Amino acid sequence: MLTRAELVAETAITLLAERGMRGLTHRAVDEAAGLPPGSTSNVARTRAALLELTLARLTELEERAFAGLLTAPPRVADLPELLAQALLVQIRDRRRTLARYELALEATRRPELRAVYDRSGARFRDPAVALLSAGGFPDPVRQASQLVAFAEGVLFYAIVGAGGEPSAGEIARGVRELLAGFKGS
Amino acid sequence: MLTRAELVAETAITLLAERGMRGLTHRAVDEAAGLPPGSTSNVARTRAALLELTLARLTELEERAFAGLLTAPPRVADLPELLAQALLVQIRDRRRTLARYELALEATRRPELRAVYDRSGARFRDPAVALLSAGGFPDPVRQASQLVAFAEGVLFYAIVGAGGEPSAGEIARGVRELLAGFKGS
Repeated sequence: MLTRAELVAETAITLLAERGMRGLTHRAVDEAAGLPPGSTSNVARTRAALLELTLARLTELEERAFAGLLTAPPRVADLPELLAQALLVQIRDRRRTLARYELALEATRRPELRAVYDRSGARFRDPAVALLSAGGFPDPVRQASQLVAFAEGVLFYAIVGAGGEPSAGEIARGVRELLAGFKGS
Repeated sequence: MLTRAELVAETAITLLAERGMRGLTHRAVDEAAGLPPGSTSNVARTRAALLELTLARLTELEERAFAGLLTAPPRVADLPELLAQALLVQIRDRRRTLARYELALEATRRPELRAVYDRSGARFRDPAVALLSAGGFPDPVRQASQLVAFAEGVLFYAIVGAGGEPSAGEIARGVRELLAGFKGS
């Protein structure tokens, strides 16, 4: 059972995915959620508040999806399969991933969203640095950034580009190759 | 000297980068370009036509930026530096790259844009497959997709994520490592 705020956020996610930033209004959320007029305004008065509520919901769900990777950092040997699985969840959750991209672009224009977005980014980069350091990789800070960029790119290419859905095995092979290249440098 | 259509497209690119899809209207283009009311409608009557005109302009400019890579495919040994330079141009051309992302998301909702976008994607993937095949890489089709995904990710992470601007040397090292990993698989 969703709270009212969660229902508003989930509906905003759907509208962002289906209609983009232009399609997200307080009124459209009320209508799409089947709520009485004014309900969304009661939960999030301004547009900025509505966007922040929506991004907070996405961040929470994303952290849940990546929880295994973030709370108990895997051994390097297990990373390719675990990362591939986590990315596949995001690729198949097209609605939420598209909404996240809409908010990521909006964050380039709204400092208050930017801050939430950057904190969430650090939650992926920092464990990646730790994992590569522990694994004896030669340049863990740069390589962690490039590992995160690779993961972002696989996701973006599959969802928005002409990539189509890769298999978990294909993603895992790519991660394994990238890690092998990191080791050898 | 820009033609009227090019001026409209360039102004639309600026509006997309600064205000997002919500900020792009025929009227806003007229105003921002200092054109008489109705000028943008004369060039591109519908919203779909305006978006297509803008994407066509971006694609043309992107092809020019990557021309060296696409028309005279480099040796694999030169790819890391050449790709890094080309990506750095895109990263520094933040306005155009943000506009491209806005249109990429819109293309998930508009089949007519999608087609233009997919053709443009193939122009990068096909030469990558050819280059990796010629270089004796073991799995050129998958690896080309992952090389393109890596490039997309570096760009996205630098422009939209918390990545900040990497140096050409950092990008080139990442590409070199990825290629070394591809070879060894």
